[in-house]
Amino acid sequence: MYQAISENDKPLAEQVAQAIEQMIRDSHLSAAEKLPNEFELAQRLGVGRGTIREAVKLLVSRNVLEIKRGKGTFVARNIGVTDDPLGLSFIQDKHRLVFDLQEIRFMIEPEIARMAAERATLKDVEEMRSHCAKVEDMIREGMNYWKQDVDFHTSIARSTQNLVIPHFIPIIHQGIVLNIDLTNRALQQETIESHRAIVEAIDRRDPGAASAAMTKHLDDNRVNLTAKYGNLNSKPR
Amino acid sequence: MYQAISENDKPLAEQVAQAIEQMIRDSHLSAAEKLPNEFELAQRLGVGRGTIREAVKLLVSRNVLEIKRGKGTFVARNIGVTDDPLGLSFIQDKHRLVFDLQEIRFMIEPEIARMAAERATLKDVEEMRSHCAKVEDMIREGMNYWKQDVDFHTSIARSTQNLVIPHFIPIIHQGIVLNIDLTNRALQQETIESHRAIVEAIDRRDPGAASAAMTKHLDDNRVNLTAKYGNLNSKPR
Repeated sequence: MYQAISENDKPLAEQVAQAIEQMIRDSHLSAAEKLPNEFELAQRLGVGRGTIREAVKLLVSRNVLEIKRGKGTFVARNIGVTDDPLGLSFIQDKHRLVFDLQEIRFMIEPEIARMAAERATLKDVEEMRSHCAKVEDMIREGMNYWKQDVDFHTSIARSTQNLVIPHFIPIIHQGIVLNIDLTNRALQQETIESHRAIVEAIDRRDPGAASAAMTKHLDDNRVNLTAKYGNLNSKPR
Repeated sequence: MYQAISENDKPLAEQVAQAIEQMIRDSHLSAAEKLPNEFELAQRLGVGRGTIREAVKLLVSRNVLEIKRGKGTFVARNIGVTDDPLGLSFIQDKHRLVFDLQEIRFMIEPEIARMAAERATLKDVEEMRSHCAKVEDMIREGMNYWKQDVDFHTSIARSTQNLVIPHFIPIIHQGIVLNIDLTNRALQQETIESHRAIVEAIDRRDPGAASAAMTKHLDDNRVNLTAKYGNLNSKPR
Protein backbone atom coordinates (compact mmCIF):
# COMPACT_ATOMS: atom_id res chain seq x y z
CA MET A 1 0.00 0.00 0.00
CA TYR A 2 2.79 2.42 0.88
CA GLN A 3 6.06 2.90 -0.92
CA ALA A 4 8.38 0.07 -0.03
CA ILE A 5 11.23 1.02 2.26
CA SER A 6 14.14 1.08 -0.14
CA GLU A 7 17.84 0.78 0.39
CA ASN A 8 19.24 4.28 0.69
CA ASP A 9 21.74 6.14 2.82
CA LYS A 10 19.32 7.07 5.62
CA PRO A 11 19.00 4.88 8.74
CA LEU A 12 16.05 2.49 8.55
CA ALA A 13 14.18 4.17 11.43
CA GLU A 14 14.42 7.51 9.60
CA GLN A 15 13.04 5.95 6.41
CA VAL A 16 10.19 4.37 8.35
CA ALA A 17 9.51 7.72 10.07
CA GLN A 18 9.18 9.34 6.65
CA ALA A 19 6.91 6.54 5.47
CA ILE A 20 4.66 7.10 8.50
CA GLU A 21 4.58 10.84 7.73
CA GLN A 22 3.57 10.01 4.16
CA MET A 23 0.89 7.65 5.48
CA ILE A 24 -0.53 10.46 7.64
CA ARG A 25 -0.70 12.73 4.59
CA ASP A 26 -2.15 10.09 2.26
CA SER A 27 -4.86 8.96 4.64
CA HIS A 28 -5.65 12.56 5.55
CA LEU A 29 -5.25 11.87 9.25
CA SER A 30 -5.85 15.09 11.13
CA ALA A 31 -4.46 16.51 14.33
CA ALA A 32 -5.32 14.42 17.41
CA GLU A 33 -6.46 11.40 15.36
CA LYS A 34 -5.27 7.94 16.36
CA LEU A 35 -2.62 6.02 14.43
CA PRO A 36 -2.92 2.28 13.70
CA ASN A 37 -1.17 0.23 16.40
CA GLU A 38 2.47 -0.88 16.33
CA PHE A 39 1.62 -4.34 15.08
CA GLU A 40 -0.43 -3.06 12.16
CA LEU A 41 2.17 -0.42 11.25
CA ALA A 42 4.90 -3.08 11.26
CA GLN A 43 2.85 -5.23 8.90
CA ARG A 44 1.93 -2.41 6.54
CA LEU A 45 5.46 -1.10 6.25
CA GLY A 46 7.13 -4.50 6.23
CA VAL A 47 9.53 -3.84 9.10
CA GLY A 48 9.93 -5.10 12.66
CA ARG A 49 8.09 -3.62 15.63
CA GLY A 50 11.39 -2.42 17.11
CA THR A 51 11.96 -0.26 14.05
CA ILE A 52 8.41 1.08 14.28
CA ARG A 53 9.04 1.98 17.92
CA GLU A 54 12.25 3.78 17.01
CA ALA A 55 10.58 5.66 14.16
CA VAL A 56 7.71 6.70 16.44
CA LYS A 57 10.26 8.11 18.90
CA LEU A 58 11.79 10.23 16.13
CA LEU A 59 8.34 11.50 15.14
CA VAL A 60 7.45 12.32 18.75
CA SER A 61 10.63 14.35 19.02
CA ARG A 62 9.60 16.28 15.88
CA ASN A 63 6.10 16.83 17.23
CA VAL A 64 4.45 14.84 14.46
CA LEU A 65 3.13 12.18 16.85
CA GLU A 66 2.06 12.17 20.47
CA ILE A 67 1.98 9.11 22.73
CA LYS A 68 -0.82 8.95 25.27
CA ARG A 69 -0.05 6.30 27.88
CA GLY A 70 -2.49 3.42 27.68
CA LYS A 71 -4.39 5.02 24.80
CA GLY A 72 -2.04 4.72 21.85
CA THR A 73 -0.21 6.91 19.38
CA PHE A 74 -1.88 10.01 17.98
CA VAL A 75 -1.16 12.67 15.41
CA ALA A 76 0.14 15.69 17.35
CA ARG A 77 -2.24 18.61 17.85
CA ASN A 78 0.06 21.17 16.28
CA ILE A 79 1.50 18.66 13.86
CA GLY A 80 5.04 19.12 12.67
CA VAL A 81 5.60 22.40 14.47
CA THR A 82 8.38 21.74 16.95
CA ASP A 83 8.88 23.69 20.15
CA ASP A 84 11.52 25.87 18.60
CA PRO A 85 11.14 25.45 14.85
CA LEU A 86 13.42 28.32 13.89
CA GLY A 87 16.20 27.37 16.29
CA LEU A 88 15.80 30.68 18.13
CA SER A 89 17.03 29.17 21.40
CA PHE A 90 20.44 28.86 19.73
CA ILE A 91 20.72 32.60 19.07
CA GLN A 92 23.24 33.77 21.65
CA ASP A 93 22.30 37.44 21.99
CA LYS A 94 18.99 37.08 23.87
CA HIS A 95 18.68 40.78 24.38
CA ARG A 96 18.78 41.54 20.67
CA LEU A 97 16.60 38.53 19.90
CA VAL A 98 13.72 40.04 21.88
CA PHE A 99 13.94 43.34 20.02
CA ASP A 100 14.28 41.64 16.64
CA LEU A 101 11.17 39.57 17.34
CA GLN A 102 9.35 42.75 18.37
CA GLU A 103 10.47 44.34 15.08
CA ILE A 104 8.86 41.43 13.21
CA ARG A 105 5.64 41.92 15.16
CA PHE A 106 5.58 45.56 14.02
CA MET A 107 6.11 44.35 10.48
CA ILE A 108 3.31 41.79 10.34
CA GLU A 109 0.70 42.21 13.07
CA PRO A 110 -0.88 45.52 12.02
CA GLU A 111 -1.27 44.01 8.54
CA ILE A 112 -2.74 40.83 10.06
CA ALA A 113 -5.28 42.92 11.99
CA ARG A 114 -6.19 44.73 8.76
CA MET A 115 -6.72 41.42 6.92
CA ALA A 116 -8.73 40.07 9.86
CA ALA A 117 -11.08 43.07 9.63
CA GLU A 118 -11.64 42.23 5.97
CA ARG A 119 -12.03 38.47 6.31
CA ALA A 120 -13.05 37.35 9.82
CA THR A 121 -16.18 35.21 9.99
CA LEU A 122 -18.73 35.72 12.77
CA LYS A 123 -17.36 32.57 14.39
CA ASP A 124 -13.82 33.99 14.23
CA VAL A 125 -14.94 37.15 16.02
CA GLU A 126 -16.67 35.05 18.68
CA GLU A 127 -13.48 33.09 19.30
CA MET A 128 -11.45 36.28 19.45
CA ARG A 129 -13.84 37.69 22.07
CA SER A 130 -13.57 34.52 24.11
CA HIS A 131 -9.74 34.66 24.11
CA CYS A 132 -9.90 38.37 24.91
CA ALA A 133 -12.07 37.61 27.96
CA LYS A 134 -9.71 34.85 29.10
CA VAL A 135 -6.77 37.27 29.13
CA GLU A 136 -8.82 39.69 31.23
CA ASP A 137 -9.82 36.94 33.66
CA MET A 138 -6.18 35.99 34.17
CA ILE A 139 -5.14 39.60 34.72
CA ARG A 140 -7.95 40.10 37.23
CA GLU A 141 -6.86 36.99 39.12
CA GLY A 142 -3.24 38.21 39.14
CA MET A 143 -2.08 35.22 37.10
CA ASN A 144 0.58 35.11 34.40
CA TYR A 145 -1.37 35.49 31.17
CA TRP A 146 1.24 34.93 28.48
CA LYS A 147 -0.34 31.75 27.08
CA GLN A 148 -3.77 33.37 26.86
CA ASP A 149 -2.16 36.38 25.20
CA VAL A 150 -0.55 34.18 22.53
CA ASP A 151 -3.91 32.43 22.00
CA PHE A 152 -5.62 35.80 21.52
CA HIS A 153 -3.14 36.94 18.87
CA THR A 154 -3.22 33.53 17.19
CA SER A 155 -7.03 33.72 16.94
CA ILE A 156 -6.65 37.03 15.06
CA ALA A 157 -4.06 35.40 12.78
CA ARG A 158 -6.46 32.51 12.11
CA SER A 159 -9.20 34.89 11.05
CA THR A 160 -7.06 36.12 8.12
CA GLN A 161 -7.98 32.70 6.62
CA ASN A 162 -4.32 32.42 5.59
CA LEU A 163 -3.24 28.84 6.36
CA VAL A 164 0.36 29.70 7.24
CA ILE A 165 0.18 32.91 9.29
CA PRO A 166 -1.25 31.24 12.43
CA HIS A 167 1.74 28.84 12.41
CA PHE A 168 4.32 31.48 13.11
CA ILE A 169 2.53 33.84 15.47
CA PRO A 170 3.17 31.59 18.52
CA ILE A 171 6.86 31.25 17.59
CA ILE A 172 7.39 34.99 17.39
CA HIS A 173 5.32 35.74 20.49
CA GLN A 174 6.80 33.20 22.82
CA GLY A 175 10.29 34.68 22.52
CA ILE A 176 9.01 38.13 23.44
CA VAL A 177 6.27 37.56 25.95
CA LEU A 178 8.56 35.61 28.24
CA ASN A 179 10.65 38.78 28.47
CA ILE A 180 7.91 41.33 29.03
CA ASP A 181 7.15 42.37 32.59
CA LEU A 182 3.55 41.17 32.73
CA THR A 183 3.14 42.26 36.33
CA ASN A 184 3.31 45.92 35.32
CA ARG A 185 -0.10 47.40 36.20
CA ALA A 186 -0.03 50.13 33.53
CA LEU A 187 0.76 47.51 30.86
CA GLN A 188 -2.06 45.27 32.09
CA GLN A 189 -4.56 48.11 31.77
CA GLU A 190 -3.23 49.04 28.33
CA THR A 191 -3.41 45.39 27.25
CA ILE A 192 -7.07 45.11 28.26
CA GLU A 193 -7.98 48.33 26.45
CA SER A 194 -5.92 47.60 23.31
CA HIS A 195 -7.18 44.04 22.97
CA ARG A 196 -10.77 45.29 23.18
CA ALA A 197 -10.10 48.06 20.64
CA ILE A 198 -8.60 45.53 18.20
CA VAL A 199 -11.58 43.17 18.50
CA GLU A 200 -14.10 46.00 18.14
CA ALA A 201 -12.41 47.34 14.99
CA ILE A 202 -12.32 43.84 13.45
CA ASP A 203 -15.95 43.25 14.40
CA ARG A 204 -17.14 46.47 12.73
CA ARG A 205 -15.04 45.64 9.62
CA ASP A 206 -12.75 48.65 9.95
CA PRO A 207 -9.32 47.58 8.60
CA GLY A 208 -7.62 50.94 9.23
CA ALA A 209 -8.76 51.10 12.85
CA ALA A 210 -7.80 47.45 13.42
CA SER A 211 -4.30 48.08 12.11
CA ALA A 212 -3.93 51.28 14.16
CA ALA A 213 -5.16 49.59 17.37
CA MET A 214 -2.64 46.78 16.85
CA THR A 215 0.18 49.27 16.25
CA LYS A 216 -0.69 51.07 19.48
CA HIS A 217 -0.76 47.75 21.36
CA LEU A 218 2.69 46.80 20.02
CA ASP A 219 4.03 50.19 20.97
CA ASP A 220 2.85 49.71 24.58
CA ASN A 221 4.85 46.48 24.66
CA ARG A 222 7.85 48.23 23.11
CA VAL A 223 7.76 50.87 25.85
CA ASN A 224 7.66 48.11 28.47
CA LEU A 225 10.60 46.30 26.87
CA THR A 226 12.59 49.51 26.55
CA ALA A 227 11.99 50.33 30.22
CA LYS A 228 13.40 46.92 31.11
CA TYR A 229 16.29 46.60 28.67
CA GLY A 230 17.04 50.13 27.42
CA ASN A 231 16.70 51.25 23.86
CA LEU A 232 17.96 48.80 21.30
CA ASN A 233 16.84 50.45 18.09
CA SER A 234 20.29 50.99 16.71
CA LYS A 235 21.64 48.17 14.59
CA PRO A 236 25.27 47.48 13.78
CA ARG A 237 26.05 48.81 10.32
CA MET B 1 29.41 20.64 35.09
CA TYR B 2 26.00 20.27 33.46
CA GLN B 3 22.69 19.95 35.18
CA ALA B 4 22.31 16.40 36.42
CA ILE B 5 19.82 14.33 34.49
CA SER B 6 16.89 14.23 36.85
CA GLU B 7 13.97 11.88 37.18
CA ASN B 8 11.09 13.37 35.26
CA ASP B 9 8.37 12.19 32.91
CA LYS B 10 10.44 12.48 29.73
CA PRO B 11 12.33 9.45 28.36
CA LEU B 12 16.00 9.44 29.34
CA ALA B 13 17.24 9.88 25.74
CA GLU B 14 15.06 13.00 25.43
CA GLN B 15 16.47 14.42 28.67
CA VAL B 16 20.00 13.73 27.48
CA ALA B 17 19.19 15.33 24.11
CA GLN B 18 18.09 18.47 25.96
CA ALA B 19 21.23 18.41 28.09
CA ILE B 20 23.36 18.22 24.93
CA GLU B 21 21.43 21.17 23.47
CA GLN B 22 22.12 23.09 26.67
CA MET B 23 25.79 22.15 26.46
CA ILE B 24 25.96 23.53 22.90
CA ARG B 25 24.45 26.81 24.12
CA ASP B 26 26.62 27.06 27.25
CA SER B 27 29.87 26.36 25.48
CA HIS B 28 28.88 28.67 22.60
CA LEU B 29 29.51 25.94 20.03
CA SER B 30 28.72 27.36 16.62
CA ALA B 31 27.37 25.83 13.46
CA ALA B 32 29.65 23.17 11.95
CA GLU B 33 31.79 22.86 15.12
CA LYS B 34 32.69 19.40 16.40
CA LEU B 35 31.08 17.87 19.46
CA PRO B 36 33.07 15.93 22.11
CA ASN B 37 33.07 12.21 21.31
CA GLU B 38 30.54 9.67 22.58
CA PHE B 39 32.77 8.48 25.37
CA GLU B 40 33.39 11.98 26.73
CA LEU B 41 29.71 12.94 26.44
CA ALA B 42 28.72 9.81 28.36
CA GLN B 43 31.16 10.71 31.13
CA ARG B 44 30.12 14.37 31.34
CA LEU B 45 26.42 13.61 31.45
CA GLY B 46 26.71 10.52 33.62
CA VAL B 47 24.81 8.19 31.30
CA GLY B 48 25.69 5.18 29.16
CA ARG B 49 27.01 5.44 25.62
CA GLY B 50 23.87 3.75 24.30
CA THR B 51 21.80 6.61 25.69
CA ILE B 52 24.17 9.17 24.17
CA ARG B 53 23.78 7.42 20.81
CA GLU B 54 20.00 7.50 21.10
CA ALA B 55 20.00 11.19 22.10
CA VAL B 56 22.30 12.06 19.18
CA LYS B 57 19.84 10.33 16.81
CA LEU B 58 17.02 12.51 18.15
CA LEU B 59 19.13 15.63 17.68
CA VAL B 60 20.10 14.63 14.13
CA SER B 61 16.43 14.20 13.31
CA ARG B 62 15.80 17.75 14.63
CA ASN B 63 18.72 19.14 12.66
CA VAL B 64 20.64 20.18 15.74
CA LEU B 65 23.50 17.76 15.04
CA GLU B 66 25.03 16.28 11.92
CA ILE B 67 27.02 13.03 11.75
CA LYS B 68 29.88 12.93 9.31
CA ARG B 69 30.98 9.34 8.76
CA GLY B 70 34.48 8.77 10.10
CA LYS B 71 34.81 12.38 11.25
CA GLY B 72 32.49 12.62 14.23
CA THR B 73 29.40 14.51 15.33
CA PHE B 74 29.03 18.19 14.47
CA VAL B 75 26.65 21.02 15.24
CA ALA B 76 24.37 21.30 12.19
CA ARG B 77 25.02 24.15 9.78
CA ASN B 78 21.53 25.59 10.02
CA ILE B 79 21.16 24.52 13.63
CA GLY B 80 17.70 23.70 14.91
CA VAL B 81 15.90 24.64 11.72
CA THR B 82 14.29 21.45 10.47
CA ASP B 83 13.42 20.82 6.82
CA ASP B 84 9.81 21.74 7.38
CA PRO B 85 9.73 23.68 10.66
CA LEU B 86 6.18 24.93 10.27
CA GLY B 87 4.74 21.56 9.27
CA LEU B 88 3.64 23.01 5.92
CA SER B 89 3.93 19.61 4.24
CA PHE B 90 0.95 18.54 6.37
CA ILE B 91 -1.31 21.26 4.94
CA GLN B 92 -3.59 19.36 2.57
CA ASP B 93 -4.66 22.13 0.20
CA LYS B 94 -1.39 22.62 -1.71
CA HIS B 95 -3.01 25.01 -4.16
CA ARG B 96 -4.10 27.42 -1.46
CA LEU B 97 -0.82 26.95 0.43
CA VAL B 98 1.12 28.44 -2.49
CA PHE B 99 -1.12 31.49 -2.63
CA ASP B 100 -1.07 31.95 1.13
CA LEU B 101 2.73 31.84 1.12
CA GLN B 102 2.75 34.38 -1.70
CA GLU B 103 0.42 36.58 0.41
CA ILE B 104 2.99 36.47 3.23
CA ARG B 105 5.76 37.46 0.82
CA PHE B 106 3.70 40.53 -0.17
CA MET B 107 3.31 41.30 3.52
CA ILE B 108 6.96 41.13 4.52
CA GLU B 109 9.37 41.35 1.59
CA PRO B 110 8.79 44.97 0.49
CA GLU B 111 9.34 45.98 4.11
CA ILE B 112 12.48 43.81 4.27
CA ALA B 113 13.82 45.55 1.14
CA ARG B 114 13.08 48.92 2.76
CA MET B 115 14.96 47.94 5.94
CA ALA B 116 17.84 46.56 3.86
CA ALA B 117 18.19 49.93 2.09
CA GLU B 118 18.50 51.57 5.50
CA ARG B 119 20.86 49.07 7.13
CA ALA B 120 22.88 47.03 4.63
CA THR B 121 26.64 47.16 5.08
CA LEU B 122 28.97 47.38 2.07
CA LYS B 123 29.75 43.70 2.58
CA ASP B 124 26.02 42.87 2.56
CA VAL B 125 25.59 44.64 -0.77
CA GLU B 126 28.58 42.77 -2.19
CA GLU B 127 27.03 39.43 -1.16
CA MET B 128 23.69 40.44 -2.62
CA ARG B 129 25.39 41.27 -5.95
CA SER B 130 27.17 37.94 -5.93
CA HIS B 131 23.89 36.02 -5.38
CA CYS B 132 22.22 38.18 -8.02
CA ALA B 133 24.95 37.22 -10.53
CA LYS B 134 24.60 33.52 -9.65
CA VAL B 135 20.87 33.59 -10.48
CA GLU B 136 21.66 35.20 -13.83
CA ASP B 137 24.36 32.59 -14.58
CA MET B 138 21.89 29.78 -13.92
CA ILE B 139 19.24 31.37 -16.11
CA ARG B 140 21.75 31.87 -18.94
CA GLU B 141 22.77 28.21 -18.71
CA GLY B 142 19.13 27.12 -18.77
CA MET B 143 19.36 25.59 -15.29
CA ASN B 144 16.75 25.52 -12.55
CA TYR B 145 17.66 28.49 -10.37
CA TRP B 146 15.31 28.15 -7.40
CA LYS B 147 18.06 27.57 -4.83
CA GLN B 148 20.04 30.58 -6.03
CA ASP B 149 16.84 32.62 -5.98
CA VAL B 150 16.20 31.68 -2.32
CA ASP B 151 19.84 32.56 -1.51
CA PHE B 152 19.43 35.96 -3.16
CA HIS B 153 16.32 36.82 -1.14
CA THR B 154 17.90 35.45 2.05
CA SER B 155 20.93 37.72 1.53
CA ILE B 156 18.56 40.71 1.44
CA ALA B 157 16.89 39.44 4.62
CA ARG B 158 20.28 39.12 6.31
CA SER B 159 21.15 42.71 5.49
CA THR B 160 18.22 43.94 7.64
CA GLN B 161 20.55 42.93 10.55
CA ASN B 162 17.48 41.34 12.15
CA LEU B 163 18.58 37.96 13.55
CA VAL B 164 15.27 36.18 12.96
CA ILE B 165 14.06 37.36 9.54
CA PRO B 166 16.66 35.35 7.55
CA HIS B 167 15.42 32.19 9.32
CA PHE B 168 12.00 32.23 7.78
CA ILE B 169 12.64 33.52 4.26
CA PRO B 170 13.80 30.08 3.01
CA ILE B 171 10.75 28.39 4.56
CA ILE B 172 8.31 30.72 2.86
CA HIS B 173 10.15 30.70 -0.45
CA GLN B 174 10.63 27.00 -0.83
CA GLY B 175 6.91 26.31 -0.81
CA ILE B 176 6.32 28.82 -3.59
CA VAL B 177 9.33 28.58 -5.84
CA LEU B 178 8.81 24.86 -6.35
CA ASN B 179 5.45 25.76 -7.88
CA ILE B 180 6.49 28.62 -10.13
CA ASP B 181 7.16 27.86 -13.78
CA LEU B 182 10.82 28.89 -13.84
CA THR B 183 11.19 27.95 -17.51
CA ASN B 184 8.97 30.86 -18.55
CA ARG B 185 11.18 33.19 -20.61
CA ALA B 186 9.24 36.36 -19.78
CA LEU B 187 9.51 35.60 -16.04
CA GLN B 188 13.24 34.92 -16.35
CA GLN B 189 13.79 38.31 -18.00
CA GLU B 190 11.60 40.03 -15.38
CA THR B 191 13.51 38.26 -12.60
CA ILE B 192 16.87 39.45 -13.90
CA GLU B 193 15.65 43.03 -14.20
CA SER B 194 13.78 43.11 -10.86
CA HIS B 195 16.65 41.56 -8.92
CA ARG B 196 19.03 44.18 -10.35
CA ALA B 197 16.60 47.01 -9.56
CA ILE B 198 16.26 45.80 -5.96
CA VAL B 199 20.03 45.63 -5.44
CA GLU B 200 20.59 49.05 -7.04
CA ALA B 201 17.95 50.70 -4.82
CA ILE B 202 19.45 49.11 -1.68
CA ASP B 203 22.96 50.12 -2.76
CA ARG B 204 21.99 53.77 -3.25
CA ARG B 205 20.15 53.75 0.14
CA ASP B 206 16.70 54.39 -1.33
CA PRO B 207 14.18 52.57 0.90
CA GLY B 208 11.10 53.60 -1.11
CA ALA B 209 12.57 52.42 -4.42
CA ALA B 210 13.78 49.17 -2.83
CA SER B 211 10.30 48.44 -1.49
CA ALA B 212 8.67 49.31 -4.84
CA ALA B 213 11.11 47.16 -6.82
CA MET B 214 10.40 44.23 -4.50
CA THR B 215 6.63 44.70 -4.86
CA LYS B 216 6.94 44.69 -8.66
CA HIS B 217 9.05 41.51 -8.47
CA LEU B 218 6.47 39.76 -6.30
CA ASP B 219 3.71 40.83 -8.65
CA ASP B 220 5.56 39.25 -11.61
CA ASN B 221 5.59 35.99 -9.65
CA ARG B 222 1.93 36.40 -8.80
CA VAL B 223 1.05 36.77 -12.48
CA ASN B 224 3.03 33.60 -13.24
CA LEU B 225 1.26 31.67 -10.47
CA THR B 226 -2.15 32.95 -11.56
CA ALA B 227 -1.46 31.89 -15.16
CA LYS B 228 -0.71 28.38 -13.88
CA TYR B 229 -3.37 27.93 -11.19
CA GLY B 230 -6.04 30.56 -11.91
CA ASN B 231 -6.95 33.34 -9.54
CA LEU B 232 -7.15 32.36 -5.91
CA ASN B 233 -7.59 35.71 -4.27
CA SER B 234 -10.98 34.97 -2.83
CA LYS B 235 -10.98 33.50 0.66
CA PRO B 236 -13.78 31.55 2.31
CA ARG B 237 -15.72 33.88 4.60
